[in-house]
Amino acid sequence: MENFYYTQDIHGPYDIFNAGNFELEHGGLIRDLKIAFATHGTLSSAKDNVILFPTWYSGTSKVLEQAYVGKGRALDPEKYFIVLVNQIGNGLSSSPHNMPPPFNAARFPSITLGDDVRAQHKLLVEKFGISEIQLVLGGSMGAQQTYEWAVRYPDFVKRAAPIAGTAQATAHNRMLVQTFKDGLTSDPAWADGWYANSASVHHGLRRHARLFATSGFTPTLYKTEGWRPLGFTSGDDFVTGFVEAHFLPQDPNNLLAMMTKWQEGNVARMADGCLKTALSRIKARVSVIAIKEDGFFPLEDIEADAAMIPNGELKQVSSPWGHLALFGVDASYNAAVDGYLTDLLAR
Amino acid sequence: MENFYYTQDIHGPYDIFNAGNFELEHGGLIRDLKIAFATHGTLSSAKDNVILFPTWYSGTSKVLEQAYVGKGRALDPEKYFIVLVNQIGNGLSSSPHNMPPPFNAARFPSITLGDDVRAQHKLLVEKFGISEIQLVLGGSMGAQQTYEWAVRYPDFVKRAAPIAGTAQATAHNRMLVQTFKDGLTSDPAWADGWYANSASVHHGLRRHARLFATSGFTPTLYKTEGWRPLGFTSGDDFVTGFVEAHFLPQDPNNLLAMMTKWQEGNVARMADGCLKTALSRIKARVSVIAIKEDGFFPLEDIEADAAMIPNGELKQVSSPWGHLALFGVDASYNAAVDGYLTDLLAR
Repeated sequence: MENFYYTQDIHGPYDIFNAGNFELEHGGLIRDLKIAFATHGTLSSAKDNVILFPTWYSGTSKVLEQAYVGKGRALDPEKYFIVLVNQIGNGLSSSPHNMPPPFNAARFPSITLGDDVRAQHKLLVEKFGISEIQLVLGGSMGAQQTYEWAVRYPDFVKRAAPIAGTAQATAHNRMLVQTFKDGLTSDPAWADGWYANSASVHHGLRRHARLFATSGFTPTLYKTEGWRPLGFTSGDDFVTGFVEAHFLPQDPNNLLAMMTKWQEGNVARMADGCLKTALSRIKARVSVIAIKEDGFFPLEDIEADAAMIPNGELKQVSSPWGHLALFGVDASYNAAVDGYLTDLLAR
Repeated sequence: MENFYYTQDIHGPYDIFNAGNFELEHGGLIRDLKIAFATHGTLSSAKDNVILFPTWYSGTSKVLEQAYVGKGRALDPEKYFIVLVNQIGNGLSSSPHNMPPPFNAARFPSITLGDDVRAQHKLLVEKFGISEIQLVLGGSMGAQQTYEWAVRYPDFVKRAAPIAGTAQATAHNRMLVQTFKDGLTSDPAWADGWYANSASVHHGLRRHARLFATSGFTPTLYKTEGWRPLGFTSGDDFVTGFVEAHFLPQDPNNLLAMMTKWQEGNVARMADGCLKTALSRIKARVSVIAIKEDGFFPLEDIEADAAMIPNGELKQVSSPWGHLALFGVDASYNAAVDGYLTDLLAR
């Protein structure tokens, strides 16, 4: 299904790695799995300057670049070879909307964050001959992938920074994500995923966006009208112009595929269901970064993860933007996180 | 429209006060406005032992009685004459589902919490000859009505205890309630309020219930499986058996009428939009009770209200049940609130 949002014009430049016929954790196969990625900086001859940064829910490599990469920042392309990798289902990598029939749309197979991380590993090893990364980091679903990396490939990962995400989706987090899904799929136009074009599901996409905005930002942001610097004129104008605008061009089946991964995010499945055992396998030095006011991944849950990581430290940042400070809209959040990442990279 | 939920069998015994032809704040009229109420205890001859307790969203006088009234508790019917009054739209008082056509269902007029409080005042004065109440209290929308009482009738109210609610609905609170409304009205069976029977809107009612449960309880409740003592066996079983069970028998138009009042709750409209001026009019001694983990009415907002009340004090209670500790399911919440109310009544 054609969709002008998921293009080089809007999210490029990026490259495609063909991971081949890729067997999935839940069974089944993606034929010619395509992983879209963008790199910044130059891989050193010793291949010892690699940073890997997978995308969050509904994000792309371009969005990560704009929010986190730049000269003088922690993720400085003059020092590091930064690989921004698009998760499966995000619309640039293989996704329900771009898969050739019959495995497209509602028939896109069920994928996991483990599939993502295995495909990303293959990309680094086969495409670039990398055997060690200085830092893997990510926000939200990117944090879930970061945990997956650190537990699955403990000898590959020297440092890790999961930001605003947990190693195991909690009962409440899964339920919250289910409300986002239900907001989307309750639109009759969704038609069990067999809509003719994604724009026809705009009621569902808008409902999903508003649910996302309600707990994604803090009550304080709305109360203090913290959206004014972005040029919005009312809370409603902000939610429409910022959050609905973000989701409306996206494909419902893509979003649903990512949300299922989000709900199932759980490194404990690599250790017979024991979260503590799984986290104890991490060899990386880890800075666990929590957003204090986070309505998606509460501080308390992130603290609990940090306490189980052998070489882990909890770092906190406060923002009225809540979970969605991840987007890079709050200069003070950006500065704090850059500081934590710079410290971690220096050690 | 017949509905077996809103009956004496389930919520009785209660009485009906006919407030006559009642002009509404937004214009329009309810013909023969009926206010359902239940009393406990005996009105003293000096009429100086009155406690008024209006209902929260989707609650009834029976639910309040079960959670808060009893011998040896703060609301002791051996000492006080306790009037539990059902808000307009709750299904026992005049409501969309029980109004005779043509003013029924989607044509039920737009009402405010000011209308409720004026009708309640009329009930106390005309039916019982009361001119002073020792305490007005309420949780959530009951707190909104409590504020409305204390600002509107400062000489009538000696003490007030708004619990887990604010004097003015915040931008975030209004948005949260809008997600509950949208969850309900997005059901095609809702049909702009002209459904043939409310059970046909069960998809919307269930969606509304799940949104309510997601922020109404805390992440900790789900994580610690705090619902186990109630006999539920999984988080999903709890949300279905407790929250969907609560909302499924209710009438969508009734719920929507109450939610509109909730969103518009704002005592500042009695003082040209100035919240501080409105709250400065309160003569009652006020114990503002906040639930620390409240996901509907955050502690910060409640603190801000308390700070503006001349004779107001903030009291806090902590519960993994979050906002919905109001229901009386957490013994430690019940004990703490009883203590605060007993202290307030003793002064």
